[in-house]
Amino acid sequence: MVSEKMYRLGTKKSTIRTIFEFGRKRAAEVGEENIFDFSLGNPNVPTPDFVRDAAIEILTNEEPSAVHGYTVAPGNPQVREILAKSINERFGTNFSGKNLFITAGAAAAITISFKALAEPGDEFITFAPYFPEYKCFVESVGAELKVVPAQPEDWQINFDAFEKMLTANTKAVIINSPNNPSGAIYSEATIKKLAEILAAKSKEFSHPIFIISDEPYREIAYDIDVPYVPNFYANTLVCYSYSKSFSLPGERIGYIVVPDEVADFGKIYGAVAGAARVLTHVNAPSLWQLVIAKCAGKPSDISIYRKNAKILYDGLTDAGFECVKPQGAFYLFPKALEPDDYKFCERAKKFDLLLVPGADFGCPGYFRAAYCIKTETIERSLPLFKKLAAEYKN
Amino acid sequence: MVSEKMYRLGTKKSTIRTIFEFGRKRAAEVGEENIFDFSLGNPNVPTPDFVRDAAIEILTNEEPSAVHGYTVAPGNPQVREILAKSINERFGTNFSGKNLFITAGAAAAITISFKALAEPGDEFITFAPYFPEYKCFVESVGAELKVVPAQPEDWQINFDAFEKMLTANTKAVIINSPNNPSGAIYSEATIKKLAEILAAKSKEFSHPIFIISDEPYREIAYDIDVPYVPNFYANTLVCYSYSKSFSLPGERIGYIVVPDEVADFGKIYGAVAGAARVLTHVNAPSLWQLVIAKCAGKPSDISIYRKNAKILYDGLTDAGFECVKPQGAFYLFPKALEPDDYKFCERAKKFDLLLVPGADFGCPGYFRAAYCIKTETIERSLPLFKKLAAEYKN
Repeated sequence: MVSEKMYRLGTKKSTIRTIFEFGRKRAAEVGEENIFDFSLGNPNVPTPDFVRDAAIEILTNEEPSAVHGYTVAPGNPQVREILAKSINERFGTNFSGKNLFITAGAAAAITISFKALAEPGDEFITFAPYFPEYKCFVESVGAELKVVPAQPEDWQINFDAFEKMLTANTKAVIINSPNNPSGAIYSEATIKKLAEILAAKSKEFSHPIFIISDEPYREIAYDIDVPYVPNFYANTLVCYSYSKSFSLPGERIGYIVVPDEVADFGKIYGAVAGAARVLTHVNAPSLWQLVIAKCAGKPSDISIYRKNAKILYDGLTDAGFECVKPQGAFYLFPKALEPDDYKFCERAKKFDLLLVPGADFGCPGYFRAAYCIKTETIERSLPLFKKLAAEYKN
Repeated sequence: MVSEKMYRLGTKKSTIRTIFEFGRKRAAEVGEENIFDFSLGNPNVPTPDFVRDAAIEILTNEEPSAVHGYTVAPGNPQVREILAKSINERFGTNFSGKNLFITAGAAAAITISFKALAEPGDEFITFAPYFPEYKCFVESVGAELKVVPAQPEDWQINFDAFEKMLTANTKAVIINSPNNPSGAIYSEATIKKLAEILAAKSKEFSHPIFIISDEPYREIAYDIDVPYVPNFYANTLVCYSYSKSFSLPGERIGYIVVPDEVADFGKIYGAVAGAARVLTHVNAPSLWQLVIAKCAGKPSDISIYRKNAKILYDGLTDAGFECVKPQGAFYLFPKALEPDDYKFCERAKKFDLLLVPGADFGCPGYFRAAYCIKTETIERSLPLFKKLAAEYKN
């Protein structure tokens, strides 16, 4: 009667959702202040005032039909020019409006990119730990997702495993840096080596292998440079979102960059437009297109994330957890205190510490703690992490 | 290298787009005021002040994270309750928030519905004249679109042809009333007869056949009742959008109604959620969810459309065109003055009258004139329509 596949995809609860709902239930029992919910990657830094002011100014002063009318599918042409200029100023690129396709956030951007590129039999590769929706999105366009095992020492790329996984069917490699959930940023050396390998393999297989750079966390980086991938590898599509940088996740606004230098610009940009069409992303929300143009280049406030990262990292390592120092995004990805990360997270629940098992991100034995929550909550959680760790010492 | 199918879908220019671009070129040559562009279905009534005021009030007074944060995928629960209540008040239904799934406009709503329902081998049926994207959207979910020939006397349903087209593979019937492009509204008698046939055929084939009621023009009706389809047929999904009623097409906000009475509520609502997920409609834009809740039940201003409809209808019939009197939406769909509607529309271009051939809507021999433009432009176009008609009299 209905598509069983859609039914399964729509009703199977994610682990994160289950943990979150458990937290809501416990909060009702023991009080909000006694729940330490590290499960959700929802930005807690308020949307900057300049974003609100821009939206109000546009609503007050602009012609309503210019604000709320359909834009062309790739987005308002002036907005695209402004964003391209802003990207060029930051990264020394040479884009113009025609290189941008404005989308309803990064989820739309990556799925549109997958659908634009995917041909029957194609394989996409990503690196553990990874955002679990990649699998759902890649499979929804009829391709297969292959996952390179993690390199837990530094969460950079396990190149030996990666090289073995590349085949003639590899269409694209999905990277996410700053990374959810590891908090790592791929260094320039990592990006250069990745580019080198892909250039060689593209030649060997006589077709381009693309990088899809999913980078909604680009601005959340703690004094570490986040290399701009198109400057290192021509066949790159950049998928960006304002969800994290301007704390606008519900508004669905971001973009895809298709550089002139990709193997066949017209073909790829055209396929992006076709994919957006069949996924019925008619246009990205029009008011928000104008708002991000007005706010282009304005800074993201990452001071709270920086502070939270330090407090949680120091607290956890002090309690005996092994953890790579976070470089960006708003997650810590420490080693669980027993091999089974599900069991570990269950045990943490006894202390009302809500953590997400690493297996959910293709990386068993670890756990994710999202620290985009109140600093004070993090501070009060530290004694509980100590108690949890103590249980494992006995 | 890319999906050829997506490339074709993304680069093949629609007739409407081609006409629109021709109009822009001509406007540059002869002046904006000398172009009579009836090609685009873009609302020209300004967004109501109460919509702008609601948006500004929310931006000014509400907590940013409550305004701009992710909502759950089906949409803000309070917003859904308010919308359900408003629907109940208008149509005597008994919905609650759980019956609604808020979407990025009607295009997303219908495609999500198609994808939720479609199984391999399924057929969807619609009625000429019809919105051409139906074909693209139905095929994108792996089903086939069958089109029932038009009934040009009144643009109601050609039931004889329809009955012959129903098979064991028919999954759903897509209706659009008030109709783009015909301007007709399906009468209660039409809906009742449709319901009767579908009930009988569902029984005969031992599976439900659904109605997908695509109704973005519901409020644009000239003193004619638009029957609320779930009141006549249980297995109905209603797809609604605020694009036309509040002139917000660029903002992408609408909803799907899944009544309790459908064959299997849990299955269908679950499949809707899964389809939204793989089409990466993460959530409908969150600010606009709050705005439509604040404006629920407020009236649409259709006075301009009503006035334009009368002027254009009177002018065209006076000039000798055959045309069914418009009942709603903002289109007139008269008979072309020669059998080949493409040739007719080409000839109209000589007078800078930009019209869309009916063949684009599965209805050759007719043309669409969108009158959501300035009243004064319509008035000045009438002598040109007369001149065009005169050419055919010689």
